[in-house]
Amino acid sequence: MMNNLLRFIGLCLVSGSVLAQYQVQHLEPAFWWAGMQHPHLQLMVHGPNISQLQPALDHPGVVLAGVQRTDNPNYLFVDLTLAPDVRPGQFDIRFMQGDKVQLSYPYELRARLPGSASRAGFDQSDVIYLITPDRFANGDPANDEVDGMVEGGNRNLAGGRHGGDIQGIIQHLDYLQDLGITQLWLNPVLENAMDSYSYHGYSTTDYYQVDPRYGSNHLYRELAQQAGEREMGLIKDIILNHIGSGHWWMQDMPASDWINFDGQFVETTHRREALHDPHGTQWDRRHFTDGWFVRSMPDLNQRNPFLANYLIQNSIWWVEYAGLSGLRLDTYSYPDKDFLSQYTQRLMQEYPNLGMVGEEWSLNPAIVAYWQRDTKRHDDYQSALPSLFDFPLQAAVVNGLNNAETWGTGLREIYQALANDFLYGHPYELVVMPDNHDMSRIYTQLGHDPALFRMAMVLFATTRGIPQFFYGFEVLMANPGSEDHGVIRSDFPGGWPGDPLNAFSGENLSDEQAEAQAFVRRLLNWRKGAEVVHKGKLTHYAPIDGTYVYFRHDVKRVVMVVLNKNDQSITLPTERFKDVTATLSQAVDVLTGERQRLAELTVPARSARIYALH
Amino acid sequence: MMNNLLRFIGLCLVSGSVLAQYQVQHLEPAFWWAGMQHPHLQLMVHGPNISQLQPALDHPGVVLAGVQRTDNPNYLFVDLTLAPDVRPGQFDIRFMQGDKVQLSYPYELRARLPGSASRAGFDQSDVIYLITPDRFANGDPANDEVDGMVEGGNRNLAGGRHGGDIQGIIQHLDYLQDLGITQLWLNPVLENAMDSYSYHGYSTTDYYQVDPRYGSNHLYRELAQQAGEREMGLIKDIILNHIGSGHWWMQDMPASDWINFDGQFVETTHRREALHDPHGTQWDRRHFTDGWFVRSMPDLNQRNPFLANYLIQNSIWWVEYAGLSGLRLDTYSYPDKDFLSQYTQRLMQEYPNLGMVGEEWSLNPAIVAYWQRDTKRHDDYQSALPSLFDFPLQAAVVNGLNNAETWGTGLREIYQALANDFLYGHPYELVVMPDNHDMSRIYTQLGHDPALFRMAMVLFATTRGIPQFFYGFEVLMANPGSEDHGVIRSDFPGGWPGDPLNAFSGENLSDEQAEAQAFVRRLLNWRKGAEVVHKGKLTHYAPIDGTYVYFRHDVKRVVMVVLNKNDQSITLPTERFKDVTATLSQAVDVLTGERQRLAELTVPARSARIYALH
Repeated sequence: MMNNLLRFIGLCLVSGSVLAQYQVQHLEPAFWWAGMQHPHLQLMVHGPNISQLQPALDHPGVVLAGVQRTDNPNYLFVDLTLAPDVRPGQFDIRFMQGDKVQLSYPYELRARLPGSASRAGFDQSDVIYLITPDRFANGDPANDEVDGMVEGGNRNLAGGRHGGDIQGIIQHLDYLQDLGITQLWLNPVLENAMDSYSYHGYSTTDYYQVDPRYGSNHLYRELAQQAGEREMGLIKDIILNHIGSGHWWMQDMPASDWINFDGQFVETTHRREALHDPHGTQWDRRHFTDGWFVRSMPDLNQRNPFLANYLIQNSIWWVEYAGLSGLRLDTYSYPDKDFLSQYTQRLMQEYPNLGMVGEEWSLNPAIVAYWQRDTKRHDDYQSALPSLFDFPLQAAVVNGLNNAETWGTGLREIYQALANDFLYGHPYELVVMPDNHDMSRIYTQLGHDPALFRMAMVLFATTRGIPQFFYGFEVLMANPGSEDHGVIRSDFPGGWPGDPLNAFSGENLSDEQAEAQAFVRRLLNWRKGAEVVHKGKLTHYAPIDGTYVYFRHDVKRVVMVVLNKNDQSITLPTERFKDVTATLSQAVDVLTGERQRLAELTVPARSARIYALH
Repeated sequence: MMNNLLRFIGLCLVSGSVLAQYQVQHLEPAFWWAGMQHPHLQLMVHGPNISQLQPALDHPGVVLAGVQRTDNPNYLFVDLTLAPDVRPGQFDIRFMQGDKVQLSYPYELRARLPGSASRAGFDQSDVIYLITPDRFANGDPANDEVDGMVEGGNRNLAGGRHGGDIQGIIQHLDYLQDLGITQLWLNPVLENAMDSYSYHGYSTTDYYQVDPRYGSNHLYRELAQQAGEREMGLIKDIILNHIGSGHWWMQDMPASDWINFDGQFVETTHRREALHDPHGTQWDRRHFTDGWFVRSMPDLNQRNPFLANYLIQNSIWWVEYAGLSGLRLDTYSYPDKDFLSQYTQRLMQEYPNLGMVGEEWSLNPAIVAYWQRDTKRHDDYQSALPSLFDFPLQAAVVNGLNNAETWGTGLREIYQALANDFLYGHPYELVVMPDNHDMSRIYTQLGHDPALFRMAMVLFATTRGIPQFFYGFEVLMANPGSEDHGVIRSDFPGGWPGDPLNAFSGENLSDEQAEAQAFVRRLLNWRKGAEVVHKGKLTHYAPIDGTYVYFRHDVKRVVMVVLNKNDQSITLPTERFKDVTATLSQAVDVLTGERQRLAELTVPARSARIYALH
């Protein structure tokens, strides 16, 4: 925060006397781009009594469309309209009092990179790797402690900062590419100037600054570029619902309605059902939406149009600035519902192919589906959100693998979860994941059973949707006996100098770890080239006798996946599948190359196999 | 069966010689009504080589529209078109060979009762009482054994026939009326001429005859009339999916495609998901729909248009003949899906206000909702079905009462189930029930806990929907330690001469039983007059602190229901509810008359209370 303040004061040209009556402490976004789809840009200007001034500017193609004020005299919202053909360039925004220029602030419209608007997002051809930046690799020990940031490094604390950073990720991009990863999702890297427990990144204190303990805006963009050179996209974790209590707004609220419940802590009910419930009440809707997560995370009121627009512009700014492939939208459904509608539409208007995935952590697929674009809803709600995390499938896979095969449990749970896809506008665009940073590691969820682990890996890599894995899964990172988030998000082995294990080099990995890593690498690299999994239809059969069979297929290719949960190998009666397998007769295991006759296909005990059929 | 055969042969006028070359063994429906909405009537005629004959008739307003034959020469399907103003009366159907009348069969069009088409069905003002007729009361010991019916009475067998009958129900209508019941649903009473296990009634062997061990068609109609005099409707249990293997069709199939899977037993998968699953296969859809329940229940192929029409006409015949208020449709979703669409539309066309409730036993509300009229579906399926049993709510209530109050369990399960009502076209028209004849008794499901039992009773009597209870619930009938259906459907105490307990008279009931019965009687009789529960809106609040609060309200009245699962009494912070309670200040317990101030409303430990607010 102090950094920003000094920088902005430095930029301000104080006119008149040496005793500046006015100053711009924040002007955001600090720059913008020419040639955006949406013609309007609103600047938030913050400084003592700045609302007493009237902005003015001269730049061809830029019209000062309006100036708006709130109940806090220290803010001005400046509305600009940009012509479609406005030229990139710099100009000054003059802040006037009558005829007198009190302040002048340099502004810039930058040139967009070619193809920026039509950039590719993430889709079924991708595999997403989720990294908790503090816990992956410490590439720059010099930024473990930073002046002005209260919380320093302490690797002994599960909930402390361990020193991982963007530089550490950049250093290991080759490893990730080799593993078969094509998209990186980082837990938030924006400034979290909090006293403690800041490593997770979900307490934003500046929407426009990367936390210096992770690096800088420039380094974040460098990560996106270096990843792009390795055919990996970068997905930003976006928090629209709340800020950290250390955000500079909290010292001087842009408007009295900026924070829900008049800025006082009232806990959210987490009862998202209230939004859809025909018997629900305004009380429950409000206490869900406006309630706070915790005292240290003031809950934003996106019904304030200045705030809504600020958040939308901020996301667009980062996509454009860093060259992102997509956004991961934290605690989706908690912000104001109409705002989410507006947000998704604005983002998709700017970037029609951008990846955007919302976190609606409900096991009720009707509630998850509600937010996806083109879902047939009971009401007239509009959403342009392409994707959601498939939490119902996550739970169904874990339960389906762990539970005994009975009438209603076991593999049928997985089948039933996928059969619910009629509820979704675009089931193939869902992000599917064995776990994430907020739940037990998949290896732990599956009772540290390597066979079940491999079955889960095959399933998430081949069912419909976009798979997402959590850093370290490939070496069986686990949290036995603890649900502590700091333990779940343990340090990636080899990310710190002197680590006894090193998953990057393979040094000192156990046999199980090395085998898992090799298996994942083989699986994901096969998937990278398996277009039929990227684009083919899913067809599955109701599980029978502890065996689940499904296909990904298009007009040219058929891939068959078999999960056999039995303690014995099975020889499949493949007659049942003839609508899909047609005249095909040979099955080649895509990971081992082993060839079998389809008519007598034998699948080993407790295993998942992927066969290319010929 | 033998009875029918003799009767029909007796009716046949054999022309020509004493050695009858032709005879009508079945002609169904045996009569019809003038003035039905639907102008077409199709007669199924069965007799040796009957297809060689050509029917003819003369009756003003009746046109012989066509004659159709199948691949079995022993069947004829005769299509009649009835004019809107056709007069009731009798006429002969002549079966001709060239100019020669080989047979003549008397037919009748009866007059409808006034108001028949617009009869009232069942709705939220009703309480349905489900009776297993063999197990309620033995009103006529003379019909316990009947010539021609193999299985006789044996009260010692859990799965045997115990002798209960229609006469027994008629004898106890006053008891049921006094209990607060307004609708009777009987498990099927049609002929089940099976060798064993026939008491449940789900193996129909004649769609037009009441089983003589229960009584007769006439007595069944008498039941409806006597019930009607006590303001109770009668709901018939309709089985469209299958017949019993003893059905006369099985001796001489009307067509070779009458029974699914070519008449061979192939078990249904029960995987109803296959019907909706976008990834599903023809194999799974067929093996669900066409598969049989058990070997003794041949599965009907309603894609055969003669069979489809036969089943539709049969239901209409019973509604008209017996004066029914509604139909309960067994194993809904298992018959052909397009047939169900046609069936529900035809029934509602004839009787726009008829009650019809389908049994789709899934805990997935999206799957249950699919079948209800006006549900917003993902596809263009048409359904006119007004109601379904709310199995998801049934499970949620039992789990919600039994489970501890945690983040995701306890009363919140009930709240969440009801919050899913956005999925239904008409949530208020669902039938809600604590149990039925196919699952453990509610008292057993609730661990034989009288407090939880009363909470369940209050909930089902006051939440949205049409409550249904299972005979004997009022005296805590239970099945501890056994899931045997014969045990679940034990004999109602007092229904047999010499029963040591008598729930009709109250004799020898335990204190718990007598208290439960009195509680239910008070609750349901209050409900009978509580129009706000019949028509008012449901508004509920997400449970907090082990307490669930909801309202039924309209412009004039407000009823407040509180479920307190805590081991202590609670005093409610009622401020939260002010959107509903508005200026009301007094709360009167509707069952005890106790009056409290709303602002300090205190609800006893582990109890449910209903308050009329003033």
